[in-house]
Amino acid sequence: MASMLLSRQLTCCLQQNSRLLVFGHRYISQAAAKIDVDFDYDGPLMKTEVPGPRSRELMKKLNGIQNAEAVHFFCNYEESRGNYLVDVDGNRMLDLYSQISSIPIGYSHPSLIKLLQQPQNLSTFINRPALGILPPENFTEKLKESLLSVAPKGLSQVMTMSCGSCSNENAFKAIFMWYRVTIHKLDIPSLDWPIAPFPRLKYPLEDFVKENQQEEARCLEEVEDLIVKYRKKKKIVAGIIVEPIQSEGGDNHASDDFFRKLRDIARKHGCAFLVDEVQTGGGCTGKFWAHEHWGLDDPADVVTFSKKMMTGGFFHKEEFRPNAPYRIFNTWLGDPSKNLMLAEVIKVIKTEDLLNNATHAGKALLTGLLDLQARYPHLISRVRGRGTFCSFDTPNDATRNKLITIARNKGVVLGGCGDRSIRFRPTLIFKDHHAHLFLNIFSDILANFK
Amino acid sequence: MASMLLSRQLTCCLQQNSRLLVFGHRYISQAAAKIDVDFDYDGPLMKTEVPGPRSRELMKKLNGIQNAEAVHFFCNYEESRGNYLVDVDGNRMLDLYSQISSIPIGYSHPSLIKLLQQPQNLSTFINRPALGILPPENFTEKLKESLLSVAPKGLSQVMTMSCGSCSNENAFKAIFMWYRVTIHKLDIPSLDWPIAPFPRLKYPLEDFVKENQQEEARCLEEVEDLIVKYRKKKKIVAGIIVEPIQSEGGDNHASDDFFRKLRDIARKHGCAFLVDEVQTGGGCTGKFWAHEHWGLDDPADVVTFSKKMMTGGFFHKEEFRPNAPYRIFNTWLGDPSKNLMLAEVIKVIKTEDLLNNATHAGKALLTGLLDLQARYPHLISRVRGRGTFCSFDTPNDATRNKLITIARNKGVVLGGCGDRSIRFRPTLIFKDHHAHLFLNIFSDILANFK
Repeated sequence: MASMLLSRQLTCCLQQNSRLLVFGHRYISQAAAKIDVDFDYDGPLMKTEVPGPRSRELMKKLNGIQNAEAVHFFCNYEESRGNYLVDVDGNRMLDLYSQISSIPIGYSHPSLIKLLQQPQNLSTFINRPALGILPPENFTEKLKESLLSVAPKGLSQVMTMSCGSCSNENAFKAIFMWYRVTIHKLDIPSLDWPIAPFPRLKYPLEDFVKENQQEEARCLEEVEDLIVKYRKKKKIVAGIIVEPIQSEGGDNHASDDFFRKLRDIARKHGCAFLVDEVQTGGGCTGKFWAHEHWGLDDPADVVTFSKKMMTGGFFHKEEFRPNAPYRIFNTWLGDPSKNLMLAEVIKVIKTEDLLNNATHAGKALLTGLLDLQARYPHLISRVRGRGTFCSFDTPNDATRNKLITIARNKGVVLGGCGDRSIRFRPTLIFKDHHAHLFLNIFSDILANFK
Repeated sequence: MASMLLSRQLTCCLQQNSRLLVFGHRYISQAAAKIDVDFDYDGPLMKTEVPGPRSRELMKKLNGIQNAEAVHFFCNYEESRGNYLVDVDGNRMLDLYSQISSIPIGYSHPSLIKLLQQPQNLSTFINRPALGILPPENFTEKLKESLLSVAPKGLSQVMTMSCGSCSNENAFKAIFMWYRVTIHKLDIPSLDWPIAPFPRLKYPLEDFVKENQQEEARCLEEVEDLIVKYRKKKKIVAGIIVEPIQSEGGDNHASDDFFRKLRDIARKHGCAFLVDEVQTGGGCTGKFWAHEHWGLDDPADVVTFSKKMMTGGFFHKEEFRPNAPYRIFNTWLGDPSKNLMLAEVIKVIKTEDLLNNATHAGKALLTGLLDLQARYPHLISRVRGRGTFCSFDTPNDATRNKLITIARNKGVVLGGCGDRSIRFRPTLIFKDHHAHLFLNIFSDILANFK
């Protein structure tokens, strides 16, 4: 049909301006038959109706795991080129929608293929950094070559984000902060949502069972109080969100029993139970999901993830499926290249038994930290951990930051959290000998600390 | 220093359990000297203090374009391997923070290198689809191999998102919808922010100058009224956000004069002026940013982008810089691989003069649409466009959807917006002859439409 269309254009060229011939009226381009972009196809080529049988089959499968009613058809991106999108049934279509306006220079552009094949770019595709703290050497240069080379007039500053909605939301934040001028999350208007306290436990947990039980009971009581109090204000609590280990807030742990009871409170009050595994998910606690440690009778309703999972997203029970298409939606909905990499990562985790490794190496690390705590109680306290997800407290913010700086200069990268904690977040290939290497270096640092 | 550390471990092995020797106390691993992950280094290696001179130089440069106070140091990811992060000054550090817990199996893992080098994966890295409408053939399969293979017990459904905050926010949406059960953005609690009407103009704009001026004046008046009304409610408007062409809302245009006056209103009331170029940015209107058409005296304060820019983000004036680190922050802050690709895309746009092409091809498309409107006024109305960012209205939703389906089966992918519009969003390599190809196909469709 492609060649048919092209020849039709050629044979119809005499009718070019004849508006009277309604059916024969033809739009002719000077360059109609000239394919000036060498990777472009020469026209559409249709083999089945769209969606065709293969697309329909795949839509049915996808619909089993998410509401797939918005899907138009499934695509063969390997075969798509230039202005033409090819579907899984072999239909080739002129694409005037370009992934909701998001493909800049056509499919499979030779320049981008070349870019990906250059060995010096390999690392950039597989080692995704936390750009705000550890940017790559060429970060500013690439921003200048890309975004800043087309910056709107008068705008010298740029921030990058992962998608359009995050961009607008962070732009709103920047505006609110400009409007008021003050620190973190202050300035920013937010909904009146209740915030319950996370238990503040004593460590090691097994030595303070009774005190910790009381503290957890207090926190659970406050959760229920808040639900009731808000209901009286006509503000109904639809869900409860909790991290298995409260991370940015200072690596706070709670007992498995605490979480089971929190889950029960959610059910009792008809609230959804959301477990935020953005930081804890992916295996570092010794189980793939930290909340697997709890042994819940009734699973969490929703579990969110990102970071080690390479893509963001959330799992949920069937009853949380949107009842219509486009209700949970944005242009990209992640990135298939990240799904591809995650599949490989999970294969490595299984093949190399990295969950058991996290348990094992975590034990080596925690044992060493407890030992350091015994030797330097004035510097290290509240040692805690699950798998390699370990942390300890220092006397104050200044000491904490000083320890991090000294460690860095001895060749160890550590991170802080809360107001005085140091947290460990090694990769899943962190082994016992890495733990010992760290402990040796850190032991020297503590011995010499003034 | 690496070898020094290792030999120190070996020579100290006799002191293994001797807790009395505080300074000589050494943590020894059975596998301490065995490097079982072949791509891992054997220990830290420090050459300068951290941040070293090269990092400091780069920090200064980055700080010129964004608040870079949170940056620890700059990294050499090409040289980073396994558990070791190498910085731009050649320092090699044991990484116990792993990009805020986001590197699953270490840096430059051989499995991921191999994955990237396989020719069959190339397309996945360079052709990023809108997953909710046009997923790749292996989408469900990859989700099953990756996310679903580790789904928490009891959770059969999964949605992917670009980052952690989007994941949590969309999970909240899913919970609110589950709690109430109804359509798009209903059900979801939101802040009490005023929404002003976007002008509803008559097209072609040059034929309805007076009516359109009145409509725009009405909308501008309402913007000011809302600012005043909200101020009386003690809700101060900190900023105004507007799209140069309202896209999802139905491809609504307004005059350049309208936007200049809106900018003036923002200044007059001390509000920031945010231009949302997520859909319009990147060149499709014939200028890189659609708002360049307006000729503003005073630039927009903030401009957001995503889609064709391959990464999300926003530009802003200096006065909108956060006054402290971590105030506009998340783990990934985009993705350097997208910046790399964008630099290449911008090079192609310049080399191939694709902005002028958008103007030219857009004119061919618009002229043809106006012609079709003259011939089929019962099917096509309100033809409008800037560059290739064209659209028209159909009589109703049902006719619109029928036209899209017929076109698709004739080999043309079109998209809808608003309640009855069809919008064009071709790539930047859409040329005159593609416009004519489309017009020929669509002319036949309209002639035969029943």
